[in-house]
Amino acid sequence: MVQKPAKPRGRPRGFDPADALKAASERFRTRGYAGTSLDDLVEATGLARPSLYAAFGDKRALYLAALDRTIARVGASFDTLIASDLPLRESLTAMFRFVVDGYLTGEAGPSGCIMISISAASAVDDADVRERLAAFLAIEDQRVETLLETRGDAQAAAHSRLVTAVIHSLSVRARAGAPREELDAIAQACVDLIA
Amino acid sequence: MVQKPAKPRGRPRGFDPADALKAASERFRTRGYAGTSLDDLVEATGLARPSLYAAFGDKRALYLAALDRTIARVGASFDTLIASDLPLRESLTAMFRFVVDGYLTGEAGPSGCIMISISAASAVDDADVRERLAAFLAIEDQRVETLLETRGDAQAAAHSRLVTAVIHSLSVRARAGAPREELDAIAQACVDLIA
Repeated sequence: MVQKPAKPRGRPRGFDPADALKAASERFRTRGYAGTSLDDLVEATGLARPSLYAAFGDKRALYLAALDRTIARVGASFDTLIASDLPLRESLTAMFRFVVDGYLTGEAGPSGCIMISISAASAVDDADVRERLAAFLAIEDQRVETLLETRGDAQAAAHSRLVTAVIHSLSVRARAGAPREELDAIAQACVDLIA
Repeated sequence: MVQKPAKPRGRPRGFDPADALKAASERFRTRGYAGTSLDDLVEATGLARPSLYAAFGDKRALYLAALDRTIARVGASFDTLIASDLPLRESLTAMFRFVVDGYLTGEAGPSGCIMISISAASAVDDADVRERLAAFLAIEDQRVETLLETRGDAQAAAHSRLVTAVIHSLSVRARAGAPREELDAIAQACVDLIA
């Protein structure tokens, strides 16, 4: 006779840590680190406090895990784009479309990027956050530079910093409520200038 | 005989609302809105809670006043630059030098811009903050466009959005701990591309 496995302690049936981390990330992206309460995280993840603590530790550990998740996902997205056969102009256009689509999503309105517009707010005071923001910026710079370089841009280093600057600006503008057409026009101006 | 004027209630001798607002703005720029406590504001301004409440209302009112102060100051700085006789390249170089100098200041480390890197964090949840961020971005865009236009840039509209994008990116990078040389190099790449 096969025994039914014991339900893990502190985890409700069907608990998926990846889903819970995604939901927590979304709440942090909406409200910021200090603006997100434990009650917010309980509501967003559907997990009781003991389950949250058991799975992720405290609020700060969950927040750092949310930032790490974003860093890994953004790096992987760039790698897919770099590996594609899209030429310079088309690859930049595809990248900006992906960025704008993502920045316009959000639980309570367009929410931009958690690294650029949320982690930056506590980066001065918190060295662990600051390191993650710096690591994210380095990955973004390096990946965009590689994208441009492999598409024959002779000024890949300088141009990459303007492309990432536009990405950062789009995050701020999305959170300010700028409509898609405004974000698209700024992305287009960047593509026209360098490709 | 001239009577000594009564000391205003709730305001300590030598209280200057402009100094207190500046000190509060700095603390908000360091720690963010939700990350700044009333105790922080008492410490930063040197005012007791009753004096703070009497002068500015609650924490949120003080925060909104800090954002309004920044919007007015940035607008005035751009107006001075526009009114100067500096040609295109020199005016952009001067602007970026001013921006980088300011972004590298901070109570606890380089702190960038309170509008770009702090107000954005609560802009999704708070319509009053979002309106101020949008107003700030509109002023910045419009002033940079005027600066370029009056210096003969035939693509002033498109170029202005790249210049403001670089300004936004410099704020994020300053808070991530990027050294001055890195910020200067990105500003230089922008100037070289459009001027």
